[in-house]
Order: sequence, then structure tokens, then C-alpha cells
Amino acid sequence: MSEWNTRDELLAKVRAQMHEKRYVHTLGVAASARELAARFGADPEKAELAGYLHDYCKCWPVDKMFEILVRHDMPAELLEGEKELWHAFAGAIVVQSDLGITNPEVLQAIRYHTTGRVGMTLLEKVVCVADYIEPNRNFPGVEEIRRLAETDLDAALILALGGTMQFLIEKQKTVFPLTLLTYNDLISLKKESRRV
Amino acid sequence: MSEWNTRDELLAKVRAQMHEKRYVHTLGVAASARELAARFGADPEKAELAGYLHDYCKCWPVDKMFEILVRHDMPAELLEGEKELWHAFAGAIVVQSDLGITNPEVLQAIRYHTTGRVGMTLLEKVVCVADYIEPNRNFPGVEEIRRLAETDLDAALILALGGTMQFLIEKQKTVFPLTLLTYNDLISLKKESRRV
Repeated sequence: MSEWNTRDELLAKVRAQMHEKRYVHTLGVAASARELAARFGADPEKAELAGYLHDYCKCWPVDKMFEILVRHDMPAELLEGEKELWHAFAGAIVVQSDLGITNPEVLQAIRYHTTGRVGMTLLEKVVCVADYIEPNRNFPGVEEIRRLAETDLDAALILALGGTMQFLIEKQKTVFPLTLLTYNDLISLKKESRRV
Repeated sequence: MSEWNTRDELLAKVRAQMHEKRYVHTLGVAASARELAARFGADPEKAELAGYLHDYCKCWPVDKMFEILVRHDMPAELLEGEKELWHAFAGAIVVQSDLGITNPEVLQAIRYHTTGRVGMTLLEKVVCVADYIEPNRNFPGVEEIRRLAETDLDAALILALGGTMQFLIEKQKTVFPLTLLTYNDLISLKKESRRV
């Protein structure tokens, strides 16, 4: 089986999990993740793969995700928290069983693509930023994030996560605590690196 | 000793801890807290007292606050976290030893006046909002918080905490996680109360 055949088969499985708009977004994230990886020194193959798989469960019924998360003993904090987070954690589980993905870096990048986490790896940052700036994205401020992502991945991620939090607060919606912890972590690291 | 003599003596001790601008703010918070307490059914005496005492340690050297927090076995999270929080926690300790304040509601209102906490009491909310809207405060958006505080204390607090977080994110500064948890808690409670 050639590499392209394998990728086509993988993409057919991905395509079957979601509606068309989500699939178009998925292809965009994979392309942007590959590009960012090449730019900042992450593995482009892993970045592209994580991009293809990051929203694997996004369009699944919440009950199905919940059942998977319970079966895999996910913490109560996740199960009782925001359902919008479930697809990332369920996705990292399902791509192992359904697609045989075992690379831990790729799985972590899927798991934390929505919130980030404290101490993100380069690959995780790449996928998270790609999710914000892929070519089909169009929200106020996206151009500034794209511009920063040309030269400074952390700055792009700070602006992306900060903008998400500001948007949610503006709408008086709750914010994932993990998103804030990630943002704080990136701000602190930036401050330290300026001090050095 | 009449009640007024007692208050004067208390205020003399408070005055000695801080520069004039902070003292003027302190008197403003006490007045606003008393007014809000009367409006929303908290104890006006306790609200006024907590207002007088909320920034007792605010102008103290950080080393002095740190020493007090360590001596009282405060959690590492606080000691290693943002120093701007120390005055509230140190204050709740010092007003006990220096001024003989023992009322736990007043002490909690001092302790959480900066961040709030999940499950705030009415008195804690009153002092927290008073700290934002006292007459000497003048920042973009304060009028809207004052307007909400006429009728809806929770809405005023949501706007105040949300605005603080948005301001900090705009300036790319870190945000206290406890502030976000408080904000999320208030948003969730508001949603629930709308559902009932």
C-alpha cells in the first residue's frame, strides 16, 4: 500500500465521521499544521496527521462520547464539565482503537487542541494554532493571529486563546479553566524569556 | 467607649497602614458596602467593617506579608502565585491579631475581596462589588457596574470580574484562576436561576 493510498483510506474514515463543512475545516487544519510544523521545527508528518484527526469525534452524539469517556475512566472534572471539551478527549481515545494511531505526541495534540494545557509541546501548539488560522477560518482578529504565526507561535497562541476568552466573557459565557491556565503559562514563559 | 469612639480608634489604626489615596478609597468602599448591604439584605455593620479593613495590608511590604502567610501555613499555591493576592489573605489574618476581629463572615469578605471565590456569600459579594464601584473609582465601564448594582448584585459582579479579566488579557497579563472560577460560578448560577 503506498503512502497516498494509506492517507486516502484514513481520510475516508475521517470523512465518514462528520459533515462536509467540518471535513473542509479538517483538511485546512492539517495543511496549516504541516506548514507551521515546517516553519517552527516540529514534525510535519505528525502535525498533518494530528490535523486530520483532531475533530474526529466532533460531530458525534454527546451520549456516545460520554460513554467512551466513562469506559476509559476519565476524571469526573471532565465528565461533569463542559461537553465542548469531550470531542478532544474522546477523539484521542477513538483514533487509537479505530485507526490504530499510537504515537503519544499525536494523541496529546488531539487531546489538548481545544484548551491547550500547561507545558504544551511544540506539536500541540502547532495543532492548536492551526485550528484557529486554517484558511477557512474567518472571525474578527484571525488576520492578526495569522500574522503572528508567521514568526512567533507562542504569541499567536496567546492572542488566539486570549481572544477566545475575551469573546466568551463578552457574551457572558463560561470559560474553560484549562484555557486560562494555558494562557497564563504562555504569558509567564514569554515574560521569563524576555528577562533572559 | 461609645460606638463612635471605637470606630474612630479603628479608623486611626487603618489610616496608619496606608497612604492617603488608599485610605480615601477604603472609606469609599465602607460607605458603598454599607449601602449595598442595606439594598440587598446583608448586614450593613459587617459590610462597613469589612470595607474599612479590606485593604489593611495593601500597602505593606511584600516580605512582611509573605512572612505572615508562611507563619500561618498558607498553601504553596498562594505563596508561589500572584503577590497581588497576598494583601487579602494577610489582611484577614492581621485584623484578627491586631484588631481583634473574629467574625468569620467579615474575615472571609476580606480574604476574598480581590478574586471572589466559588460559592460567595452575600456579604462577600457586597464587599467585592463595593471595591469596584466606590465613589472614587473611575475606570471605563464603572458606570455600567454601578447601574447594575442598583438592582442585581450578581450581574454587577459578573461584569466587574469579566471586565477585569478582559482588561488583563488585553494587556497580555496573567489572570488569577480563582477570578475565572468565581466568574464561571456566577454565570452558571445565573443560567440556572433563569431556567427555574
